[in-house]
Amino acid sequence: MYTIDFEPVGRRRKCPKGISLLDCARRLNVDIVSICGGMGKCKRCKVQIVSGLVSPPTPADREAFTKEELKQNYRLACMAYPQSDVKILVPPESLSAPQRTQVEGLDLHVEPEPPVCGLEAQMTPPSLDAPDSDDQNLWSALKKKYDISPGRMDITVQRDLSTQLRNQNWKASVALRDSEIVALGASHTRWLGMAVDIGTTKIAAYLVDMESGETLAARGLMNPQISYGEDLVSRIYFASKSAENAEKLQMLLVDALNQTADSLCREAGADPSRIVESVVVANTAIHHLFLRLPVHQLGVSPYVPAVRSALDIKARDIGLHIAPGAYVHMLPNVAAYVGADHVAMILATGMDRTDGVRLGIDIGTNTEICLNRRGKMTSVSCASGPAFEGAHIQHGMRAASGAIEHVRLSGDHVEIQTIGGKPSVGICGSGLLDVIAQMLENKVIDATGRMNAHPLVRRRDGQKEFVLVDRPEDGSITVSQKDVRELQLAKAAIRLGIETLLEDAGVREKDIDGVVIAGAFGTFIDVESAVTIGMLPPLPLERFKQVGNAAGAGARLALISKSRRRAAQRIASRDGYIELASVPDFNIKFARASSMTWAIKE
Amino acid sequence: MYTIDFEPVGRRRKCPKGISLLDCARRLNVDIVSICGGMGKCKRCKVQIVSGLVSPPTPADREAFTKEELKQNYRLACMAYPQSDVKILVPPESLSAPQRTQVEGLDLHVEPEPPVCGLEAQMTPPSLDAPDSDDQNLWSALKKKYDISPGRMDITVQRDLSTQLRNQNWKASVALRDSEIVALGASHTRWLGMAVDIGTTKIAAYLVDMESGETLAARGLMNPQISYGEDLVSRIYFASKSAENAEKLQMLLVDALNQTADSLCREAGADPSRIVESVVVANTAIHHLFLRLPVHQLGVSPYVPAVRSALDIKARDIGLHIAPGAYVHMLPNVAAYVGADHVAMILATGMDRTDGVRLGIDIGTNTEICLNRRGKMTSVSCASGPAFEGAHIQHGMRAASGAIEHVRLSGDHVEIQTIGGKPSVGICGSGLLDVIAQMLENKVIDATGRMNAHPLVRRRDGQKEFVLVDRPEDGSITVSQKDVRELQLAKAAIRLGIETLLEDAGVREKDIDGVVIAGAFGTFIDVESAVTIGMLPPLPLERFKQVGNAAGAGARLALISKSRRRAAQRIASRDGYIELASVPDFNIKFARASSMTWAIKE
Repeated sequence: MYTIDFEPVGRRRKCPKGISLLDCARRLNVDIVSICGGMGKCKRCKVQIVSGLVSPPTPADREAFTKEELKQNYRLACMAYPQSDVKILVPPESLSAPQRTQVEGLDLHVEPEPPVCGLEAQMTPPSLDAPDSDDQNLWSALKKKYDISPGRMDITVQRDLSTQLRNQNWKASVALRDSEIVALGASHTRWLGMAVDIGTTKIAAYLVDMESGETLAARGLMNPQISYGEDLVSRIYFASKSAENAEKLQMLLVDALNQTADSLCREAGADPSRIVESVVVANTAIHHLFLRLPVHQLGVSPYVPAVRSALDIKARDIGLHIAPGAYVHMLPNVAAYVGADHVAMILATGMDRTDGVRLGIDIGTNTEICLNRRGKMTSVSCASGPAFEGAHIQHGMRAASGAIEHVRLSGDHVEIQTIGGKPSVGICGSGLLDVIAQMLENKVIDATGRMNAHPLVRRRDGQKEFVLVDRPEDGSITVSQKDVRELQLAKAAIRLGIETLLEDAGVREKDIDGVVIAGAFGTFIDVESAVTIGMLPPLPLERFKQVGNAAGAGARLALISKSRRRAAQRIASRDGYIELASVPDFNIKFARASSMTWAIKE
Repeated sequence: MYTIDFEPVGRRRKCPKGISLLDCARRLNVDIVSICGGMGKCKRCKVQIVSGLVSPPTPADREAFTKEELKQNYRLACMAYPQSDVKILVPPESLSAPQRTQVEGLDLHVEPEPPVCGLEAQMTPPSLDAPDSDDQNLWSALKKKYDISPGRMDITVQRDLSTQLRNQNWKASVALRDSEIVALGASHTRWLGMAVDIGTTKIAAYLVDMESGETLAARGLMNPQISYGEDLVSRIYFASKSAENAEKLQMLLVDALNQTADSLCREAGADPSRIVESVVVANTAIHHLFLRLPVHQLGVSPYVPAVRSALDIKARDIGLHIAPGAYVHMLPNVAAYVGADHVAMILATGMDRTDGVRLGIDIGTNTEICLNRRGKMTSVSCASGPAFEGAHIQHGMRAASGAIEHVRLSGDHVEIQTIGGKPSVGICGSGLLDVIAQMLENKVIDATGRMNAHPLVRRRDGQKEFVLVDRPEDGSITVSQKDVRELQLAKAAIRLGIETLLEDAGVREKDIDGVVIAGAFGTFIDVESAVTIGMLPPLPLERFKQVGNAAGAGARLALISKSRRRAAQRIASRDGYIELASVPDFNIKFARASSMTWAIKE
């Protein structure tokens, strides 16, 4: 038996030797497309082997993939037989039912004020009487039409200039960033931008029209660094060990973004060389790994970032294959564990500009929380762990087709709802939250999280478990006592974060005027369940607002608006920060916060 | 017989087959060092084969050179036997008597106002109470000590920052360029700059202390592009043919500058990574070839530069291995054949700031001339050709040991003076100018340049020649009728340039208040001879000033002074330009200008 782990859906189970990856996927209810039924003919069941060994490529594989792809361990699932435990990445196009991506988000209502503008220039060809140099000829045309003073030109644009002007009959479209020309194209080129939110687990990328601000294409993908550790700490450790490791982790991200830029552009019928600006947000560790900045000091006390300031870096200096003169703008970080993605979230929700007392929560493997008390903003970061992503949960999985996402329990009757209405395969984060809230309300567990006797509670291998789906022939789906403990740790971390912020600001929980919940996971949870188990404060439900991937939305805002970029800078420098590790009596408080009620102080 | 051409001394002659390069050098009186007498033991007679075939490397060569050097065709001259016509480059260290380099120049009197400043920062280590990010920590220290607001930091500096601060106990020396930190080092690092003047034939490079402005080391070398054509037009043609060719010509220069930076630094006991700024000047074609800008349009009417503006380019973007965050500043060009080196010459001589009517002449393969008439500056460029460098002259050579540099003739008695007082080997440019002036004064030639009967004039192979050194056993040195014509073409070009400028400005020649003669060649000519043959206007000798390599001096000024950099910008935009090719009746005027008197109008 080998353990086969399908990502990004997060299905992991032992499968017998001698069956193909496609058959493993079927056993695990992972919906890989297969039209020919596993004959190696339709070439639709493409997967990537992230770790472990499979049988060598077949002639069908050689037809289906380029040499480059084969080197990157792409295989047809129907032709590949595991020869060890393996981890498989299923690309979105090979999944018959799409998993929930992080690309949905806030609607943007902002007047574009693009950091890179497209200008049209019409020049006079030089003559012996007026032998103007090509650069001056271009600047004169811009001066005449737009009253723009001569500035700089990227060296790659300079190298292209003379040939382009002559080929285009002395007409050109210019991409101007402040006073620098970063790209040149044929007349009326549509200049594009790319906004990227790199999460610890997932990446969301958006292709945007720089002039209108319109999103032309969006794409969600896995963070490929995941093969070097699901959590940040192990990646920090890996990158700190050697310069080669750090480069490896960087190149994984850069390659992924290059491929994403290609596919976004293919979808929009454009060329990646038309992308003249990119904004990237991430948490501080990913931000540093992406730029190959040192990360060792992020992992040891006093936990300091190498860089907090916003950065403008030539795309070519980090290996990004967009317009060669383009910049990547990195939004500023706040602290070692409160990164630019948090700043982007605040930017997108506008919670820095609201009155009263507001709480913003971006739930993920790390959860960042910000409290705005009448203009004074303070943030904390909580290590909430990967339980919400389905990891370390017995039948956990990510929010993909067939995942149990909602649960209602009355007596010994369970009602479940799965994503896409498909047969249940496992439990995703929101389902886990629901089932545990229902177990608490129905007294299957008590406030300490201990499982009581109940018709649906049984004992297996010496451990108590709650049976959600009883399916002896095809594998039951259960929630174990250990699963309850995992969720308790996650919720305790978030809860302690909220409490610390309230205490620091001298605010009572009932004075909170609004709570914004961001992040893909936050979008789908039942807020009532989160309140029930004491993860969120007991406020009237109308005070909660679930906004989706706000970090990605913030990145898009900063991509198309200079004033939003300045606002991000103000947010980052205004935002105070509390290091949870330095809170007095941390351990006692954490233990208390793991109680399954909010009102623990009484 | 093979033709053996020794560069940079410019000695070229046929030698019998079957003798070593060292023996060829001896026959041609090229002073290559040899201590062991040609046994392959002392390893001092290192040369580089630029073109042509020689015998394969011997064991002695393998001892003397690295694999890399052998690949670059380095050989011991005593072990290498020509197997075709060959062109040899003799490195300075292999010449027993140094040739005149272009590194001498004007004394600089300017208060340093460095574009890159060295600042000392002393930081407080971060703590849990104050977990400042490393970038902010550094900027705060600079703010406190120097009241400098936070700016940018090159990505390569960012990558180094955290480790360096911790290794250096939170002390650092910072190289700040405007608001950007371009390098970081241990406390009290001495930051360096490199000024380079790239000529068509020679390169002069200077290592400068950025704070004091002191020149720490200087070096002259050949422009290695010479193996792809002695004149600009053939290099422009070669580079225009393919992107690979253009890259080849660029890499030759970049490699040469990298090696020069290394040796300058070795001489000064420094490391090239301490070079935080470089200024490069060149004529427009070399400027473009160095940056791999297109050159095709320089070679065809209406002859326009791709770029006129001054440029600031990251050294890494052109492959220069100095501090990775350093910039190369390129001074502005004026026109296709009036380049940044001319601007640097005007800058160094200060002729833009003088009263009255001033003429500035930089004599070389291309001669640029500038007239400043009470603040109105106009320039021309004349294709004066390589005669002054000894090329296309029967017994011509560059200004190296043994070259005849001065000649006096009375009746049939010739007095010669050679460089270094060595036995005569050939004639360099200043010697040629002298001998022709003397021939004119002594009526050996008439005003049209035709050689008359004279005791020292003889006929050989149907051509008349003037015998300067009569040495039947060891090769005589003569000046042929054709040599006279070559010089006439060169002088006609310069003369027509001067005349065109005077006419355009409505100035009579006697109203010229001063003439500055720049360039290595200009330093050594006898001005009286130049006036005699009508190359320079007949003014009192005290109005002429010979200033050496003014372009190199201008590059050094721009390296250490921001205000001189701005002045260069003003010069370039103020400087008008006349295209000689568009002057009416050019051919008639050119023919007239070749007359060996100035007063041709009468």
